[in-house]
Amino acid sequence: MRVLADQSVRARCLPLLVGHQSSLEQVAEQIGLEVTLQAVKDPQEGFGVAPEDPIPVLELENPIPVDPPGRASAGFGAAAVEAVLRAGTMCKEGSADGMVTPPLNKRSMHMAGFQFEGQTQILGELSGSRRYGMLACSGDLRILVATRHMALRKALERLDVGAVTKQLRIAHEAARGPLGLTQPRIALAGLNPHASEGGAFGDEEKKILVPAIKRVEDEFGWSTYGPEVPDVVFAEGAAGQWDVVVALYHDQAFIPLKFAGRAQAWTLFVGGGILRTSPMHGTAYDIARTGAAETESFRFAFEQCLRLAEARISASCSNSSTKETKTSSST
Amino acid sequence: MRVLADQSVRARCLPLLVGHQSSLEQVAEQIGLEVTLQAVKDPQEGFGVAPEDPIPVLELENPIPVDPPGRASAGFGAAAVEAVLRAGTMCKEGSADGMVTPPLNKRSMHMAGFQFEGQTQILGELSGSRRYGMLACSGDLRILVATRHMALRKALERLDVGAVTKQLRIAHEAARGPLGLTQPRIALAGLNPHASEGGAFGDEEKKILVPAIKRVEDEFGWSTYGPEVPDVVFAEGAAGQWDVVVALYHDQAFIPLKFAGRAQAWTLFVGGGILRTSPMHGTAYDIARTGAAETESFRFAFEQCLRLAEARISASCSNSSTKETKTSSST
Repeated sequence: MRVLADQSVRARCLPLLVGHQSSLEQVAEQIGLEVTLQAVKDPQEGFGVAPEDPIPVLELENPIPVDPPGRASAGFGAAAVEAVLRAGTMCKEGSADGMVTPPLNKRSMHMAGFQFEGQTQILGELSGSRRYGMLACSGDLRILVATRHMALRKALERLDVGAVTKQLRIAHEAARGPLGLTQPRIALAGLNPHASEGGAFGDEEKKILVPAIKRVEDEFGWSTYGPEVPDVVFAEGAAGQWDVVVALYHDQAFIPLKFAGRAQAWTLFVGGGILRTSPMHGTAYDIARTGAAETESFRFAFEQCLRLAEARISASCSNSSTKETKTSSST
Repeated sequence: MRVLADQSVRARCLPLLVGHQSSLEQVAEQIGLEVTLQAVKDPQEGFGVAPEDPIPVLELENPIPVDPPGRASAGFGAAAVEAVLRAGTMCKEGSADGMVTPPLNKRSMHMAGFQFEGQTQILGELSGSRRYGMLACSGDLRILVATRHMALRKALERLDVGAVTKQLRIAHEAARGPLGLTQPRIALAGLNPHASEGGAFGDEEKKILVPAIKRVEDEFGWSTYGPEVPDVVFAEGAAGQWDVVVALYHDQAFIPLKFAGRAQAWTLFVGGGILRTSPMHGTAYDIARTGAAETESFRFAFEQCLRLAEARISASCSNSSTKETKTSSST
């Protein structure tokens, strides 16, 4: 809400909050934010609200959670998942150009009976795509992690030509889709020190990574740089030299991402045809509704969504008006 | 030489170049550096030279290489190894308080018949220590890498309680030795995402890292923090929160180090009782003697050596005069 209270933001897009109006008003009052909201009955009415009018809110069907704030609850989880699904559906159907989501508390989500790993899976299943994922980004450093939360040893076992080919394909599609690039510079990080230095330190580069790069080139005509030296490629990505860097294991991606700075840490859903960005931080339930949460990271994620939506609309030379959705969980 | 041409540097220490005087003078002329040198017959005479006098040079016994600059040669390798050994001997014997070395070309070294892995091994063997190593640093981020140049898979195989215990011991000794700390904050990075999050992603934390921390605590009374979350601990180290972070594999260390910046990238020899710092970059033979090489990184390494030597002298309340050695390969 703090982002939408900024008139310059409203001049650039037509926002629609998805949540519980009364909860949002209560939060605004608690954190001393002057903002007026208005209920709308559907997305069409919401996106018709003029920038100078109260911010439109699309009410959730789930009941307003009565649980105390700052703790996981099934009520918060159910509302959050509904908000993501409602906004995702608008994007999928084309009534919205993009969505920005605050973090979702996984414990609340699981308490509400949803077994999703997170928002990426919710949107992935909603989209019906067989290849979806999430770019983890900080500023200009955009990383697709080929393996997620698992032991490093297990991640090494999972790496084969098929798995890496699939991730490269997602990276290329992400660059050509939501990132809107025609000639993206995609880099694949090596697995071993110095990308094995010609085989001196390991053979995964030769046996897995090079063949995967070749397969993507052969099947789709898409070129990938690499295997690149791991301790160089991420710093190059942060300097804007790569559009997407494909990392092979969790820490290869998150060590540089955390280094690149939290304020500009954001994520981008890719592969499902839905434009969705999110800040990378967690729910910070411990400071819920205190007004202590910094908005810089959310603002940055919002700005990325705006930028990507504007670029896509501009590229498609469409005459339809710019519509921008912001979803908000009711937590 | 460019660093020593600065009078403020000479006011703080008594430098001694180890190299070939005529080669150094030739290089100075080629890069347009105004500097005067003088030959000295031994370290004692060298450290007796006043700050306003020409910079003393201890001549190498190896002949002046006649090879063209910018290419590896046995002559350059032999001279470089001798320079490191001569300066190292001064430090070992106590005639010098510390040494700063430019990078050494490994190919030249091998062509000269030396099978060392690098300067760390040269100094380690010279020192006679059974536990030595190198801290790889950038600014305040100081990392000891438990495994060096090898395939990631092999690094995982090498990790056991004994190996990690040894590295923790080196880190603690480094902090208490060359870093001059009495209550160092030593952190051990986890191996798996989120340091396995209580066993959810791998068991090396529980089976190897925790027992190693306990063993060092039991045997030496030295406490180590960890296993710390890998994608957090290095950023904390860069922010000055840790004195030494022990990393488990090459890229866990070098991805954050390269991110933290090249200009302040330096290394510190540890475990052998010799104070030696070095910039982290390579020899850059391609720009040899062009004057194009940036000196910022060397200056930073030099400053670290000065700072550590001054702290040690100040701590020992010695009345002996400050002596500082700079070794220079003749390349």
